[in-house]
Amino acid sequence: MPTVGVIGGGQLARMMLPAAISMGLELKVFAEADGSPAHNAVTQVGDYNDLAQIKKFAESVDVITFDHEHVPIDLLEALVQQGVSVQPGPHCLRFAQNKLLMRMRLQELGLPMPAWKAVVNSEQVRAFISEHGPEVVVKTPIGGYDGKGVRMVSDAAEVEDWLADLDKYGGQLLCEQKVSFARELSQLVARNSAGDIVTWNTVQTVQAGGVCAEVIAPAPLPVNSKLADEIARTISEQLGVTGVMAVELFETKTGDLLVNELAMRPHNSGHFTIEGAVTSQFEQHLRAVLGLPLGDTSMRAKHAVMLNLLGVDESNNLVENFEAAMSYGPALKIHSYQKQPRKGRKMGHITALGDDYVQLLERCREAAAKLYDSKSA
Amino acid sequence: MPTVGVIGGGQLARMMLPAAISMGLELKVFAEADGSPAHNAVTQVGDYNDLAQIKKFAESVDVITFDHEHVPIDLLEALVQQGVSVQPGPHCLRFAQNKLLMRMRLQELGLPMPAWKAVVNSEQVRAFISEHGPEVVVKTPIGGYDGKGVRMVSDAAEVEDWLADLDKYGGQLLCEQKVSFARELSQLVARNSAGDIVTWNTVQTVQAGGVCAEVIAPAPLPVNSKLADEIARTISEQLGVTGVMAVELFETKTGDLLVNELAMRPHNSGHFTIEGAVTSQFEQHLRAVLGLPLGDTSMRAKHAVMLNLLGVDESNNLVENFEAAMSYGPALKIHSYQKQPRKGRKMGHITALGDDYVQLLERCREAAAKLYDSKSA
Repeated sequence: MPTVGVIGGGQLARMMLPAAISMGLELKVFAEADGSPAHNAVTQVGDYNDLAQIKKFAESVDVITFDHEHVPIDLLEALVQQGVSVQPGPHCLRFAQNKLLMRMRLQELGLPMPAWKAVVNSEQVRAFISEHGPEVVVKTPIGGYDGKGVRMVSDAAEVEDWLADLDKYGGQLLCEQKVSFARELSQLVARNSAGDIVTWNTVQTVQAGGVCAEVIAPAPLPVNSKLADEIARTISEQLGVTGVMAVELFETKTGDLLVNELAMRPHNSGHFTIEGAVTSQFEQHLRAVLGLPLGDTSMRAKHAVMLNLLGVDESNNLVENFEAAMSYGPALKIHSYQKQPRKGRKMGHITALGDDYVQLLERCREAAAKLYDSKSA
Repeated sequence: MPTVGVIGGGQLARMMLPAAISMGLELKVFAEADGSPAHNAVTQVGDYNDLAQIKKFAESVDVITFDHEHVPIDLLEALVQQGVSVQPGPHCLRFAQNKLLMRMRLQELGLPMPAWKAVVNSEQVRAFISEHGPEVVVKTPIGGYDGKGVRMVSDAAEVEDWLADLDKYGGQLLCEQKVSFARELSQLVARNSAGDIVTWNTVQTVQAGGVCAEVIAPAPLPVNSKLADEIARTISEQLGVTGVMAVELFETKTGDLLVNELAMRPHNSGHFTIEGAVTSQFEQHLRAVLGLPLGDTSMRAKHAVMLNLLGVDESNNLVENFEAAMSYGPALKIHSYQKQPRKGRKMGHITALGDDYVQLLERCREAAAKLYDSKSA
């Protein structure tokens, strides 16, 4: 079996390893530092902005894929020109890296989105606010994640710092209509290099402070999962994405769907698939980037819910009360990423399967409360 | 979270790693050679018969456990005396290592077994054959596994070589009545250091050539699972076993159960639990040896079946046709242990979940046929 190389040693690379172990694949990880969550598979530590280092890593694997979307596109293009298999390729990753390019491309594809506009000065921001305000969303096209690089703005002055430093963000800012959504959804899709596409059930995500807090799979009805599925398939196919992609969606109060953001990698909204689906997003990603047949995405239970465990401070690593949480929920799957604790950091997650998602969420929250208990209570 | 050290780098250690990764545990493996199935977690390579090497390994972990039962008991006793936590401890592992000691101990516990006798010469073998023959089973008390060290004997001459070399096998041989069983069962149990005990569903195992070929979980009815459960709990508790133990059982034509063999570690008959149970035997073993609360052992589906993939020769590694097998069964979980191929070697396994175990078995067999196809057909 071939060797998959993952750039980035975070929790996504970490969670690819069990899938690789099951299938008998060799996984190698290029991490930024020692002691990363993916440490069991790390074979090289260095700077992913350095072509020579990444090239050396590429020579030790059959295909390059990613734990994150931060590797410079020109570097990936150089690799591809040298014959390295980069999956997903720079031709589609650039849309995940640049939110403005993504909006332009999705517009070409005729997909439903919030109103948006590229702006370069305060006047244009003000004009967008007058048309779509009183409050709008302003985003830096590049460099943002987990709520960073996104601001709710009712006055152009609130993004003056960004406008003064436009080169850093890709030369323009992205203004978007603030959608008064009923809830947020996520549609996970996988496409392999042969062009086969599969989707999982549409899920509901609950965000807190720009970070995913909870996921309910499938999203409680009614939901236009057929449309979510079509949108994700269209993007995956038209952009030529290989691997797993998550399409974050707003569901409006009338049940319409609008594309919010894309992630071209396994995604927090798909962690439930580890136990909740026949094929997890991590296994599927490995299959897809290797051009292997895709696995069944059916649910293993009527519902799966996932709750993120976020760091509370720099001392509580959320494992001191692991025993209490395990005692409380013998059927809960409590995942820990072995990360150094930091406020707001994704430290782990809890998954529960069953029939009643309200009850499952309650159980996950109770278990999380026990984990947080030592320091944060 | 503490660090678990596993002696032995085979597929059982390999399959503990995904469980450790999920729970955020650190796993370290002491392997016999480079390139073992558990290579992602190997931190030391050496000889497990060497106290100094094992002692050095023990200093790097919080608890020692096992991938196999071959570590000499006196070595483990020396570790325990030096304050190392060895789980399961030598006080119970000696029963797993010596089938004669096991029979004596189970007899004390009043558990149902085939008729048996310790013998030291041909005359005693002949006497046992006259009483229980025409054919009986003779076993070497130590050193046997997967059919090795076990012979079907109708004439004492057939074990003359063993009798001539008794010191090698523990000073005696074990004669056992050949049970005309209806089928074979296995009962998996886990006990943690706090004394909590859980069992999984009783399963049916199908052996071929002394090696486990297929497992059906739960065992098709009718089955005296209450008795199987009681036997496993009694052994686990009375012998003070920490971790997972498998009790292999004969089911007679009248539905009675007789204890065949014990394995004090995760076991081939429990591989189905990776996908088929809420808590896999590998996760449970790690929980148990660390004294953590035990997880829920419920099934994730009505049935799970597991089929072993055995090596056919030294060239077919059973992954050349992986794509064909994956295409055939997108819902099958095909596991590969990344082993060098050898005839009869356990190379991997396939698990399928669903309602109809006959159909599931058929699908696993079809997929296996595809994997074997390149060289063995």
